[in-house]
Amino acid sequence: MPSQEAIAQTVNRYLEFLSKGSADDIASLYAADATIEDPIGSDIRRGHDAVREFYAAVEGIKKETELVHLRIGGSEAAFFWHLTLDAGGSRSRLSPISVMRFDDDAKITSMRAFWSPTDMKVL
Amino acid sequence: MPSQEAIAQTVNRYLEFLSKGSADDIASLYAADATIEDPIGSDIRRGHDAVREFYAAVEGIKKETELVHLRIGGSEAAFFWHLTLDAGGSRSRLSPISVMRFDDDAKITSMRAFWSPTDMKVL
Repeated sequence: MPSQEAIAQTVNRYLEFLSKGSADDIASLYAADATIEDPIGSDIRRGHDAVREFYAAVEGIKKETELVHLRIGGSEAAFFWHLTLDAGGSRSRLSPISVMRFDDDAKITSMRAFWSPTDMKVL
Repeated sequence: MPSQEAIAQTVNRYLEFLSKGSADDIASLYAADATIEDPIGSDIRRGHDAVREFYAAVEGIKKETELVHLRIGGSEAAFFWHLTLDAGGSRSRLSPISVMRFDDDAKITSMRAFWSPTDMKVL
């Protein structure tokens, strides 16, 4: 089981890479056969190529991220965070609750994000 | 799939019953074969009797609950909330992130709570 510190480090890097890194940076945090369900209820993406593709689609959008509440248990984490999108003068914010599972190396094996478009707030 | 409104109602009733209801009230929100993992990483409790027993153990403790952030997707919900415990003059607060799955009648089929003792704050 990964340590709580290692899990917290992966979560913090994930949010850092989302705002300042590339899709490859983010994919490097995932295990090879990882799955993504974002948002909950959508089709599940599986594997490194699907992970990279998912993040590459939003790579060009200016983003800020902020970790607000992080809870860790076993080899999992749940966190409430802000994603602020800056689309040339118009800023909007989504605040998901994300749930991740990790392998022994604290790589993400599963990411599931709870949010819906109605949660989006114009700033 | 239950409606988002039905899921939100069950979550709100859950927190209301936790503070003002009995273990039987809370168990009535659960499906017959439901599971509880609270906290994450602990042994999984299964079935109505185990659910009732889990809540009966803390029935006598004075509690307040507050829903802070609720996110719903598909037939699941994740929520960040406060549990304030009042043990005769000494008040403390735990703020878990809980994840629930629901059946078509919006009964809880799975409850998983992310928190650890180090999250407890004395008020």
